[in-house]
Amino acid sequence: MTEQKSSNEMWGGRFASGPDAIMEEINASIGFDRKLYAQDIRGSLAHAAMLAETGIITAEDRDKITDGLNAILAEIDSRKFVFSRKLEDIHMNIEARLAELIGPAAGRLHTARSRNDQVAVDFRLWVKDELSRTAAALKKLIEALLARAEEHAATVMPGFTHLQTAQPVTFGHHCMAYVEMFGRDLSRVRDAIERSDESPLGAAALAGTGFPIDRHMTANALGFREPTRNSLDSVSDRDYALEFLSLAAICATHLSRFAEEIVIWSTPQFNFIRLSDAFSTGSSIMPQKKNPDAAELVRAKTGRITGSLVALLTVMKGLPLSYSKDMQEDKEAVFDAAGTLELALAAMTGMVSDLTVNTASMKKAAGSGYSTATDLADWLVRELGMPFREAHHVTGRAVALAESRKCDLAKLPLEELRSIHPSINEAVFGFLTVDKSVRSRKSFGGTAPEQVRSQIRYWKKRIAKA
Amino acid sequence: MTEQKSSNEMWGGRFASGPDAIMEEINASIGFDRKLYAQDIRGSLAHAAMLAETGIITAEDRDKITDGLNAILAEIDSRKFVFSRKLEDIHMNIEARLAELIGPAAGRLHTARSRNDQVAVDFRLWVKDELSRTAAALKKLIEALLARAEEHAATVMPGFTHLQTAQPVTFGHHCMAYVEMFGRDLSRVRDAIERSDESPLGAAALAGTGFPIDRHMTANALGFREPTRNSLDSVSDRDYALEFLSLAAICATHLSRFAEEIVIWSTPQFNFIRLSDAFSTGSSIMPQKKNPDAAELVRAKTGRITGSLVALLTVMKGLPLSYSKDMQEDKEAVFDAAGTLELALAAMTGMVSDLTVNTASMKKAAGSGYSTATDLADWLVRELGMPFREAHHVTGRAVALAESRKCDLAKLPLEELRSIHPSINEAVFGFLTVDKSVRSRKSFGGTAPEQVRSQIRYWKKRIAKA
Amino acid sequence: MTEQKSSNEMWGGRFASGPDAIMEEINASIGFDRKLYAQDIRGSLAHAAMLAETGIITAEDRDKITDGLNAILAEIDSRKFVFSRKLEDIHMNIEARLAELIGPAAGRLHTARSRNDQVAVDFRLWVKDELSRTAAALKKLIEALLARAEEHAATVMPGFTHLQTAQPVTFGHHCMAYVEMFGRDLSRVRDAIERSDESPLGAAALAGTGFPIDRHMTANALGFREPTRNSLDSVSDRDYALEFLSLAAICATHLSRFAEEIVIWSTPQFNFIRLSDAFSTGSSIMPQKKNPDAAELVRAKTGRITGSLVALLTVMKGLPLSYSKDMQEDKEAVFDAAGTLELALAAMTGMVSDLTVNTASMKKAAGSGYSTATDLADWLVRELGMPFREAHHVTGRAVALAESRKCDLAKLPLEELRSIHPSINEAVFGFLTVDKSVRSRKSFGGTAPEQVRSQIRYWKKRIAKA
Amino acid sequence: MTEQKSSNEMWGGRFASGPDAIMEEINASIGFDRKLYAQDIRGSLAHAAMLAETGIITAEDRDKITDGLNAILAEIDSRKFVFSRKLEDIHMNIEARLAELIGPAAGRLHTARSRNDQVAVDFRLWVKDELSRTAAALKKLIEALLARAEEHAATVMPGFTHLQTAQPVTFGHHCMAYVEMFGRDLSRVRDAIERSDESPLGAAALAGTGFPIDRHMTANALGFREPTRNSLDSVSDRDYALEFLSLAAICATHLSRFAEEIVIWSTPQFNFIRLSDAFSTGSSIMPQKKNPDAAELVRAKTGRITGSLVALLTVMKGLPLSYSKDMQEDKEAVFDAAGTLELALAAMTGMVSDLTVNTASMKKAAGSGYSTATDLADWLVRELGMPFREAHHVTGRAVALAESRKCDLAKLPLEELRSIHPSINEAVFGFLTVDKSVRSRKSFGGTAPEQVRSQIRYWKKRIAKA
Repeated sequence: MTEQKSSNEMWGGRFASGPDAIMEEINASIGFDRKLYAQDIRGSLAHAAMLAETGIITAEDRDKITDGLNAILAEIDSRKFVFSRKLEDIHMNIEARLAELIGPAAGRLHTARSRNDQVAVDFRLWVKDELSRTAAALKKLIEALLARAEEHAATVMPGFTHLQTAQPVTFGHHCMAYVEMFGRDLSRVRDAIERSDESPLGAAALAGTGFPIDRHMTANALGFREPTRNSLDSVSDRDYALEFLSLAAICATHLSRFAEEIVIWSTPQFNFIRLSDAFSTGSSIMPQKKNPDAAELVRAKTGRITGSLVALLTVMKGLPLSYSKDMQEDKEAVFDAAGTLELALAAMTGMVSDLTVNTASMKKAAGSGYSTATDLADWLVRELGMPFREAHHVTGRAVALAESRKCDLAKLPLEELRSIHPSINEAVFGFLTVDKSVRSRKSFGGTAPEQVRSQIRYWKKRIAKA
Repeated sequence: MTEQKSSNEMWGGRFASGPDAIMEEINASIGFDRKLYAQDIRGSLAHAAMLAETGIITAEDRDKITDGLNAILAEIDSRKFVFSRKLEDIHMNIEARLAELIGPAAGRLHTARSRNDQVAVDFRLWVKDELSRTAAALKKLIEALLARAEEHAATVMPGFTHLQTAQPVTFGHHCMAYVEMFGRDLSRVRDAIERSDESPLGAAALAGTGFPIDRHMTANALGFREPTRNSLDSVSDRDYALEFLSLAAICATHLSRFAEEIVIWSTPQFNFIRLSDAFSTGSSIMPQKKNPDAAELVRAKTGRITGSLVALLTVMKGLPLSYSKDMQEDKEAVFDAAGTLELALAAMTGMVSDLTVNTASMKKAAGSGYSTATDLADWLVRELGMPFREAHHVTGRAVALAESRKCDLAKLPLEELRSIHPSINEAVFGFLTVDKSVRSRKSFGGTAPEQVRSQIRYWKKRIAKA
Repeated sequence: MTEQKSSNEMWGGRFASGPDAIMEEINASIGFDRKLYAQDIRGSLAHAAMLAETGIITAEDRDKITDGLNAILAEIDSRKFVFSRKLEDIHMNIEARLAELIGPAAGRLHTARSRNDQVAVDFRLWVKDELSRTAAALKKLIEALLARAEEHAATVMPGFTHLQTAQPVTFGHHCMAYVEMFGRDLSRVRDAIERSDESPLGAAALAGTGFPIDRHMTANALGFREPTRNSLDSVSDRDYALEFLSLAAICATHLSRFAEEIVIWSTPQFNFIRLSDAFSTGSSIMPQKKNPDAAELVRAKTGRITGSLVALLTVMKGLPLSYSKDMQEDKEAVFDAAGTLELALAAMTGMVSDLTVNTASMKKAAGSGYSTATDLADWLVRELGMPFREAHHVTGRAVALAESRKCDLAKLPLEELRSIHPSINEAVFGFLTVDKSVRSRKSFGGTAPEQVRSQIRYWKKRIAKA
Repeated sequence: MTEQKSSNEMWGGRFASGPDAIMEEINASIGFDRKLYAQDIRGSLAHAAMLAETGIITAEDRDKITDGLNAILAEIDSRKFVFSRKLEDIHMNIEARLAELIGPAAGRLHTARSRNDQVAVDFRLWVKDELSRTAAALKKLIEALLARAEEHAATVMPGFTHLQTAQPVTFGHHCMAYVEMFGRDLSRVRDAIERSDESPLGAAALAGTGFPIDRHMTANALGFREPTRNSLDSVSDRDYALEFLSLAAICATHLSRFAEEIVIWSTPQFNFIRLSDAFSTGSSIMPQKKNPDAAELVRAKTGRITGSLVALLTVMKGLPLSYSKDMQEDKEAVFDAAGTLELALAAMTGMVSDLTVNTASMKKAAGSGYSTATDLADWLVRELGMPFREAHHVTGRAVALAESRKCDLAKLPLEELRSIHPSINEAVFGFLTVDKSVRSRKSFGGTAPEQVRSQIRYWKKRIAKA
């Protein structure tokens, strides 16, 4: 056709060879879905075993298929397998090689199965494996935090609100706040595993099959709790990917918060911590300079993971059932987010373990800014029975006095304090240092070292069982 | 100051009155956080009861506080309460009114508490309540789908891939795919409730308190499983909001898929369903026209909810501990997403219940496009022992033949089929109609009506317990 | 119908009254699109004038319509107009009122027009107005920055990379970096106005009209450059909204960067600036504490605006032409982002104008960390002809020496420097103080005060013309 | 250190070798920034030429550097260059190789330059090149659309609102709606090029330099309009990347809309078009089936591009000036979005050029659903002087009549029409067929073929100059 001809002339640049080249480029997934090869072969082995067990294929064919698939697995593992983009995806690449290796029996593997349920089971297996890797990485990070928290259960530092010194806390307490966050992440991972623990294999193209297959058998062989209950949903569901991306985005947010603190704490102005050489870069010209590169990169990665979540939510928006090719966009988003999260968790674990805590700077900062003013107010309420609002007012005057004297609250002479309120007595000074302040906050979950240690014990037990 | 003066001249437009007006506008949250009034009062009542029980305040003061708070609750419920933007937020509005009503005792309510843990407990209570409302709305939608699935367990329609007719399924089976999706949403809601079921009350400003409070008592009184374990995390955590937004975004994706189908199915070209008048709009000039407005709006709402998720993920990125004012942005995102999701679920429940199914159109479409070709291939494999790939090839030739004859596969004369493969026999015609095709797919989760009914029974039991 | 009846029983909660209530809630837009009333009336006035001019309606009818619309405008402006949710949107509310006021002539206003082109022209006019407001707000912020830059063209502060002190710069230079950013924002606003300056009025429902209308006349009357060129695109295009949201998101990113700096600079550790009372909140108990609330809120708002952008991009994804009801979701996203951006720009303008610069702290910090090491290296290259890499090496040794002596580079005795490299001479000390360093960087766009002042002059001229 | 040792034991999985391996993995950018090699070498060549011209280096050194860089360019082009991850990024890889090739003179290239301005100029050059490629791709797509529009200026199809038939339009008119959209995209690309056409080279690390460089010379040599005006902004600005991602996201939205239409139009139910084999995939078993894979993939890609935009907006949120390592995340987001957009534009151009239009199906659908009802109403207004609202009412009755007769409006006997309104006469039938309807809509931008052709002429001229 002349029209075809003229349209061909339109392709320029990298698509010089016309429509076929563009289609191959946009359509082929082997560039990224080869990552699923182990899952694809596991799925096929389970399917073949079931087909033989239910009498749909012979034991002999099953054995050929099994041997062939194992040979292919070895070829890919040893990087001898030649992937072909013409064969589009990992499923067709393996299928074609199987036919080469074992002949017509290869054709029987695809009885009662379709690429739709095959890709669904492959990807679910991969995501499930990744969730387990994420859980392991979270446990390591929590353990690293618990170790630092134990070491610094009583190391005083400023507790901030609005990045302004508010009240003294301990560095151990601060570490334990992150244990809570990553603990929730771990709990979300567990829930996601549990929820997606269903095998779509046997849903076939979209409607199930008339062959007398046993989906419970394949589900069991692949380590799933049970088969999925609806064949249409089985091939069109990507909730497990969306849920992984959601929990990864929340976890990345936690990482970004700690990363931000590391960046701020590493400034000469704060000087609370010093990253190890391994996690910072220096300057050949300014040897005193340590750039917190790893922390900055961890902080940035939250953008990337949120981006992947948005990408897949957008892809899935408004897709009619059942399978649409749009869903091929699920994999790169998940692979990239998974690799990014693993790396960010490892980098944070490394930084937490290796960083040096500058306890002197922390303590000095904790004592600045009248950080024990609340302790004075609480004392007035507790000991003198003042209503809180009045105690606030009295404390404000004391702080103003200390400010004019350029001294700490604990250094104000008693008579000066009494000029503000005559009932104040010597005992008050037992509450105005940062150490006393910290030790006094014994409420459940408070910053008192005994409370911090109690929560460390709780988490050690919980993590041991996780 | 002259500088102040000249800078004041810069305010124009709606900020004519200078810095104070801008600050009030950006800072005040009473415009939206008044939604938390019931939660705020519940939290204060629990706190006051505990303070008295632990001897921190007197029983007399507690009674005054309790009476005052109940009076305020009644005032707000009956819309007699006057909110003031000068008082910034719901907490200060209620506190100021309490002081008016009961005098100095009001000041004692704030012993061992801060606005930081107060807002945290209020918002958690609200989100927890909202999660329960979401669960109830999901159950209603699932029940509506189960009712339609039961009615149409055997109503044949085309099963689509790529929006092309692939194999026949039943409308009941299609409905049940959505039951699976909304069932997973419900399960995510349950997990979110369980994970956030911890009371932050008593974390105080950020470090806990030296007062001998009993956080288990307030947690219990407010219906939480237990108190949170780390005071810094308690006032800086917004995971419960992010998790709500994540599950809402995934649920909205499901709604958008069904909405898209409703829009497409309502076209004259498809004509599979007809929305009730209640959920569509007409045209005074074209009485036959029914615009599926409700479905389009439900489809669009997924954008809004994803937007809210992105908003809060972005807000939380890189925030140092503990409380930062940035976190005030959490509420509008969650309130808007919650209202949107409730409305979209209700609208979808309404559409599902009210829509008329055009079974004739569905059946006709199901039979077009040689949708039973896979059934022929399966028959060749099953009955003649052909390898699947060869069966595919034979089927392809049969379809080509039917196409040239402009007839269905089931209408091809036996001798013509035999010209393609001599072993084909009369029995094959038992498998080439859409009804037979559907009935044959009895694999677990398949589209055979008996399978569909079995899954309906499963879900009825599960939902009854949910 | 019994089915209808039973489905009605399903509505609970706030949708107690059944489908109609849900539909009204999800469908009605009057709650937010009333914001378009002035634009709607402007559009109708222009349309009526054109209809009369082209002879489609009589001059008498036009006069009635004009008087009626002006009366309605006055009613709404004076808050006497009663909006009805039953009438769904602003267009129907005004149309119904017009019919009340002027009778049958009102019906002639809708000749050759549809709600589709009406809403399109209303929203475009609103966005165009908002873009002008944004431009004005950006100009004010730039002027505020120019004023501070002029004042502090020579005020030395540390230039940071990785939030580590790198080289000295001036605060004026730092302010001018933001002038560049907001200048680009302003340029994007101008381009957006130019690109969307086309009137969709007259596209009618979607296909144009057979009436002999004059679209150039209405375009001109409404202040548009020209009419749109394609009627389908006219009613289905929302690019102007997406482009506004995109530029708002980029601008919000700039605001968030400055806001972050304000938060960090306000810490006692940095102490570079002090926000005015108007833009911070204090604590009744810690009078020295100033929480940079306005900066934190500005920083957070970037999430909200990005969220709105994502929302509308998601809504528009995959919408077939021409109008779909999904597009009703455009308005709230844009209104919210517009209000948020206006407020954030005003708050930043206020903070910039009112903040106190602590020049002593800045200068001290600028001199720490061997920030002039690069100046030494550059001197070695320039004066001694050393290759840069060798100069780096020599400088590294000098810094190590200074560090061991616990002194600045400028304080190292000449003989010690000579022990590192014998050609170093007295002249080098002319380059090792922060003031000399800053003054030396005279390259175009560099931090030398004369360069900063030159760029201030450039921008003053440019803004005057903008 | 024992702590170091024990923390090393924590690395598992792929980070078995400890902190250094993690740091290398998270820090190195050579895996993706090698894409910038040509830009990096162009920048260095321009810098070296300027350094010699201004007397900062000798002509001899410049010649060595030039020869060395050209040799490296040839090595990379011919894939002989060995990239090293230890050398982190493309700049260090080239710098190290240059030192190998030309010795100490290589060290002089880095005079008055830093990696910060080097990466900024490289990436800007790349984005500028990519914007030009995008412009070229958009022009090709517009040309393809113009060709189809010309061919089908008078081909009648249904114009849809809410995906319901509303009024007849032409397929050419529909194509021209997309010309408007992609035309706006092209205009945004031009503006982005213009806005980012400034060279950051010479900003050095962040503060400019004391060397007497000539930034206008390098800007000119690299094809930039002028140098940037602020050195801090030069190394911390990524607006050009954000603006590219924004316009790409909007363009992707347009692509997704057309892709959605292609998917829907390819269903057997619509059957408006048939994709060429090149852009669809078949089924070996159902030869009649054509899956619109390319359209589905184009539709999905909008998610990916929006994801990249969100990623970079999130990365840039709240970054203090000037360079932070977070900004290294800019490249992959932009590279991926750029490749995706190029591919999607090429695929859409291919589909548009190759698809077969089923004019019979389109015309039949255009005539269904009383799509000319508005024409009847307009006729009543125009010819009988009826107010529009009354004309609506009369038309509604005519349609109801036709519906009960199961015929089109054009087939209703005149006397029946007169029973509705006695003034209706024979002439009305000249307006009730789809062809007449289409031809009548001659308003500017309307669907009348003469209007469509006029707009085609406009765009041909405009594109020729673009």
